[in-house]
Amino acid sequence: MIIDGMGDRPIKELGYKTPLEAAKTPNMDKMAEMGINGIMDPIKPGIRAGSDTSHISILGYDPYEVYTGRGPFEAAGVGVDVVPGDIAFRCNFSTADPNGVITDRRAGRIREGTDRIAETINSMKLEDDVEVIFKESTGHRAVLVLRGEGLSDAVSDADPKHEGKAPKEVLPLDDTPEAKRTASLLNKFIKKSCEMLKDHPVNIERIENGENPANIIVPRGAGAVPHVQPFREKYGLKAACIAETGLIKGIGKITGMDLIDMDDVTGGVDTNIENIQKSIMETASKDYDFMLINIDGADEAGHDGQMEEKVEFIEKVDNIVGEMMKIDDVYFILTADHSTPISVMDHTGDPVPLIIKGPEVRVDDVKEFGERAATKGGLFRIRGRNIMDILMDLMNRSTKFGA
Amino acid sequence: MIIDGMGDRPIKELGYKTPLEAAKTPNMDKMAEMGINGIMDPIKPGIRAGSDTSHISILGYDPYEVYTGRGPFEAAGVGVDVVPGDIAFRCNFSTADPNGVITDRRAGRIREGTDRIAETINSMKLEDDVEVIFKESTGHRAVLVLRGEGLSDAVSDADPKHEGKAPKEVLPLDDTPEAKRTASLLNKFIKKSCEMLKDHPVNIERIENGENPANIIVPRGAGAVPHVQPFREKYGLKAACIAETGLIKGIGKITGMDLIDMDDVTGGVDTNIENIQKSIMETASKDYDFMLINIDGADEAGHDGQMEEKVEFIEKVDNIVGEMMKIDDVYFILTADHSTPISVMDHTGDPVPLIIKGPEVRVDDVKEFGERAATKGGLFRIRGRNIMDILMDLMNRSTKFGA
Repeated sequence: MIIDGMGDRPIKELGYKTPLEAAKTPNMDKMAEMGINGIMDPIKPGIRAGSDTSHISILGYDPYEVYTGRGPFEAAGVGVDVVPGDIAFRCNFSTADPNGVITDRRAGRIREGTDRIAETINSMKLEDDVEVIFKESTGHRAVLVLRGEGLSDAVSDADPKHEGKAPKEVLPLDDTPEAKRTASLLNKFIKKSCEMLKDHPVNIERIENGENPANIIVPRGAGAVPHVQPFREKYGLKAACIAETGLIKGIGKITGMDLIDMDDVTGGVDTNIENIQKSIMETASKDYDFMLINIDGADEAGHDGQMEEKVEFIEKVDNIVGEMMKIDDVYFILTADHSTPISVMDHTGDPVPLIIKGPEVRVDDVKEFGERAATKGGLFRIRGRNIMDILMDLMNRSTKFGA
Repeated sequence: MIIDGMGDRPIKELGYKTPLEAAKTPNMDKMAEMGINGIMDPIKPGIRAGSDTSHISILGYDPYEVYTGRGPFEAAGVGVDVVPGDIAFRCNFSTADPNGVITDRRAGRIREGTDRIAETINSMKLEDDVEVIFKESTGHRAVLVLRGEGLSDAVSDADPKHEGKAPKEVLPLDDTPEAKRTASLLNKFIKKSCEMLKDHPVNIERIENGENPANIIVPRGAGAVPHVQPFREKYGLKAACIAETGLIKGIGKITGMDLIDMDDVTGGVDTNIENIQKSIMETASKDYDFMLINIDGADEAGHDGQMEEKVEFIEKVDNIVGEMMKIDDVYFILTADHSTPISVMDHTGDPVPLIIKGPEVRVDDVKEFGERAATKGGLFRIRGRNIMDILMDLMNRSTKFGA
């Protein structure tokens, strides 16, 4: 169970406690008391992990090998059946003026009708041997997948990052014909998106309602879908992924886990925490050997610099932990994928606390869950990539190296 | 000094202590008090080490590079002068019926006469340019070494693992001519062993006594003898190896240590602990810079799930530790090569406790020897491969990296 971005730094307003240390978390504290504790560097000490690279590492894959960019995981997470070699992009539905200048990167924070726009874009023909797969994600977000031979992810972003600028020309990032071809395809894609969306019924309706139309698609974050050994093949564990965000769902999907659908979850502090708890408890009662659970709100609060929201959200998650502790005969790992300190409003490389609770662990004398309490535990300081090895060993599922 | 398999997990019957924590070990506790303590992952956190791979790692070699299988170490351990490139196998003296079906994998747990059988097998000719070296080990165990050009260890096991089956045909595990040739030689070896042993005097005698004859040799665990830099060349230390089992003796032998012979040692909890102590004290008085000591009984008790035997054996070893502490002017490292928990009855990846005692170590405030007490020490969590570096540094024997 990974509480996204939960780690933090001491905050003056909290009496130099971190949000986790300041939060009332009787259930997490109980788990710390019953388990073995330590701190964990998702990748390496001081390395600022993304949620994606951290999860990849925690699942025992090498992010330096597997991670080619966010595109593939986002695409998989929204339900595109990506295959190794696909080139995937994150996209925004944006608004451009008649001169092609982006006037709103998020197309009036569009929420409705993106599926119908996506359907139109999905029919785009670029070249005979290249398949265009386009799918809406939440809000103004979407994914684009180019499938075919002779493509590359070594291309620059089109997203100008600021309003008032035209999309940047996509450039090849190396000298290969594949990169040049892909850059040219992308530029053509952006141009065609304008043509196809100019008079799209959804946009006509939006303009009538005084809303910014979604009349251009702007891609970024190119990544080639990596070859990844399925989790089940790697560990022999039938796994489910319970996550709110496309990114983490994508990691579950690309590693071959079953994705558990949840209603009404937002990835924010306003998420439906009861639904998450319900999904966890239901999934636990099914025929799975392993569950990857990600809850995202603490990270959002960190990115937004909302100290009190972060504390409160951690307290909400504590209730789920209490419920989960009723599940019998499991090993439970509670940690975060990285720190997202309120003061930084972004991910940092500070290590995160970690508990392993379950049959036969060498219970230590740590009695609360927190960044500093965890340093007194029996695990000391481990890395994300150690976790599956330790878990497989505890579950008696690993093979011996030697005699 | 490596107490084989000593690490364990908390056991309910011991009040949630481990056998080491529950055992009365005044001398080990004294050593913990006088030294610096920590826990050690023989290879990496969570990785289930064999005794062989762990010792290789602790001696500062990379097991992922050096370890090709158990065969080479067993062969070296029983006294075969293996050289790099030799292909070594572990073998059983077994009993086959006239149809070639194995009726007893251990040939009536034969103990006498295996040297005479080995002498016969040793004279086997397979092909002109391949030397057959065969030697008995303890009981029904033996080793086979094939020496020559164009051989490979990529061959499958002949051992059917269960009675009532014929030996499995040895197959090449890759497409090389070397693997094909070695597989074919092995199949010929097994066939010839039957012919040569059918009417062997030892077997005639056994049949007369109503005992199962050792009329077939069944190889497994192929490994190419690795190129290993001799310990003395690597560290400049003249080293002795005091071990009970062929496997650990083999590691001593392959790294070029002097093997110290001991009478009446079994590798079990019934071993002659006084003889081990005597050998240690005698060897310490000789001209050695380094001693590798392995005592095996705690591992046997772990594999057998014998909690009380494990506790008692650790207490016996504690007497040796008390005696050894009288040796002046040495650095003493006390640890285990892996955990063999009573509950698991096999090796696990749980880290093991470690003490370093000697002049000038930064003595910490740990006052007892145990898996959890050690976590409060000054060494924190280290890896097997760190040990020789630390020791060499303490001994002022290492060279500075940089200026």
